[in-house]
Amino acid sequence: MAGLEGVPVADTHLSMVDGQRGHLIYRGQWADKLAHSHSFEEVTHLLWVGRLPEHRESERWCRDWTGKRALPASTVRILDSLGTEQGMMESLRTGVSSLPWEGKTWPPTPEALVGILARVPTLVSHRWHRLQGTDPIPPREDLTHAANYLYMLTGKEPSAAHVQALDAYWVLTAEHGLNASTFAARVVTSTQSDGLSGLVAAIGALKGPLHGGAPSEVEGMLEQIGDSNRAAAWIERRLRRGERLMGFGHRIYRTRDPRAESLRVVAQRLASEEPWFRLALQVEEEALRQLRQWKPHRELHTNVEFYAAVVLKAIGLPRELYTPTFTVARTAGWCAHILEQAENNRIIRPQSRYIGSFPD
Amino acid sequence: MAGLEGVPVADTHLSMVDGQRGHLIYRGQWADKLAHSHSFEEVTHLLWVGRLPEHRESERWCRDWTGKRALPASTVRILDSLGTEQGMMESLRTGVSSLPWEGKTWPPTPEALVGILARVPTLVSHRWHRLQGTDPIPPREDLTHAANYLYMLTGKEPSAAHVQALDAYWVLTAEHGLNASTFAARVVTSTQSDGLSGLVAAIGALKGPLHGGAPSEVEGMLEQIGDSNRAAAWIERRLRRGERLMGFGHRIYRTRDPRAESLRVVAQRLASEEPWFRLALQVEEEALRQLRQWKPHRELHTNVEFYAAVVLKAIGLPRELYTPTFTVARTAGWCAHILEQAENNRIIRPQSRYIGSFPD
Repeated sequence: MAGLEGVPVADTHLSMVDGQRGHLIYRGQWADKLAHSHSFEEVTHLLWVGRLPEHRESERWCRDWTGKRALPASTVRILDSLGTEQGMMESLRTGVSSLPWEGKTWPPTPEALVGILARVPTLVSHRWHRLQGTDPIPPREDLTHAANYLYMLTGKEPSAAHVQALDAYWVLTAEHGLNASTFAARVVTSTQSDGLSGLVAAIGALKGPLHGGAPSEVEGMLEQIGDSNRAAAWIERRLRRGERLMGFGHRIYRTRDPRAESLRVVAQRLASEEPWFRLALQVEEEALRQLRQWKPHRELHTNVEFYAAVVLKAIGLPRELYTPTFTVARTAGWCAHILEQAENNRIIRPQSRYIGSFPD
Repeated sequence: MAGLEGVPVADTHLSMVDGQRGHLIYRGQWADKLAHSHSFEEVTHLLWVGRLPEHRESERWCRDWTGKRALPASTVRILDSLGTEQGMMESLRTGVSSLPWEGKTWPPTPEALVGILARVPTLVSHRWHRLQGTDPIPPREDLTHAANYLYMLTGKEPSAAHVQALDAYWVLTAEHGLNASTFAARVVTSTQSDGLSGLVAAIGALKGPLHGGAPSEVEGMLEQIGDSNRAAAWIERRLRRGERLMGFGHRIYRTRDPRAESLRVVAQRLASEEPWFRLALQVEEEALRQLRQWKPHRELHTNVEFYAAVVLKAIGLPRELYTPTFTVARTAGWCAHILEQAENNRIIRPQSRYIGSFPD
């Protein structure tokens, strides 16, 4: 009962996570193949509409996004009113909640959801600049979702390699079944609430360190280890204390996480010459060796968070932007689930089992 | 599977909803008795701490609340930046999201949650005044939660009868097991996210018309019927079209809803002389008669929403404030579940069943 582990609570056309075989399918297609052949915008179309867009359709679809990137003045005022104690995820939760919802409240439509999805990168970069004390950079309409995001963060046109890497990361993490944030979005949507309410719930869930925080902890681990000579001792100390090793093991995957494999290839292309990339490879090897020794009966493999951290670091993003950048990707999946929940809706209202006392 | 109906997903000490017998227990005590013997503040203590407060404890507990009612300047700026298209529940979602969270993020504490609960009425009344074009009225520290709420809305010290009625309504609706909003709060909390994220998710769920919207629809129904002579024809037309009758039937209660009975007594005390109160009684009688005729095999009884509407109308609240006023009450239950989830936490991550196609 606890955690509903293994309990199916919805039928879905969106994705299949096969933890035994290490497969991830989006709407009938291998997610890891899509990451090398299609853009985040196209994969979002696949998830929301059910198929990849044709060439002309794809142009129109991307134009829909680029025209909706700017933040309304009210949301800018709201972001700028937040105290500096409000971090990136808190700000994103409040910022998304403040956006206008276009059209009817129910049922949610792809048109209304694009208006939110297109603005999430702008919210992230606006708030990031404010917290750094630098001026926010307005979005450009001539760049892709990934290129525009990096442009707004840095003010420079990013390299094609960085854009490709971020795009692949976003495709691979756009959707992953009924994780806690996606499930929260469906529960909220099931009351016939608006799409913003579902997304705000999901952002709040992803904010929790058990869900969205792991890549930045992986980066912290690599930084603490610092040098490959120290990897073995550092990992042993950690395991001896009974602590978890971030970036290894997954509740669902009992074999290699297909997303980790795919991201390793992406990272290799970008950073194979970097000393910290070699450090990451050595830490992974040592961690897997010791995990087999310490926990021989558990299938602990490198998970998506390990190589997510490596890719995001290779692109040059600071650690504080890892979870917000993951949020940009997963918003596509949340919206797909909001649309699917609304299609054949029934309010999600489980039971609790009372274990308290009774009146005399 | 759909909607997890009847599926227990958590053990709880907080409440037992016995739909077969029409019982509602909070922590070992009858909810309907508490509504006539204890204040909302005291019942919140019961839910959060596990027992009713002793006399001195009660004073200290209430003082904690009154000192935390004022809104931080940042939240005032944020509420006032929202466009007028943002209704009461959207504003409450954004306003709560913008509040500071006191102390450590995890685990949530009653102290941090009181800082939110105490401010929900202030958020509601501040935004309500802005949307009406009137000046917000600051909270007073010498009034109870219910009296201060009515004072902030009207600028007048409310009658003892109105305060008592609102207090009883709040006690009766403070907690009700794993409804969609409470469940959403627990799912979000299960990722070790902060209490604000859980509450924001819950507000988003309660905003949905399938969950929190019914009392205002009941009021709309009474207004449309207008005169008891028209009740029979109006109800028949509705049932003939296959439409639902708001205020009757409940997914869980197969017998009388104990909260409806209790609220009927409260309403009677306030409004027995009012013509629309007699109209409500006649509409109820006629609705139950026709429902027995049209749906003889279903147990459709008057539910809490019917008499919630009657009580809130008797107190003089406008219809647009019904769901926000319900939110004030249910925040106590949401917080209790957030505390309980954190006590023995495990991430809530169910499964979906893939019914899509496979790669060639």
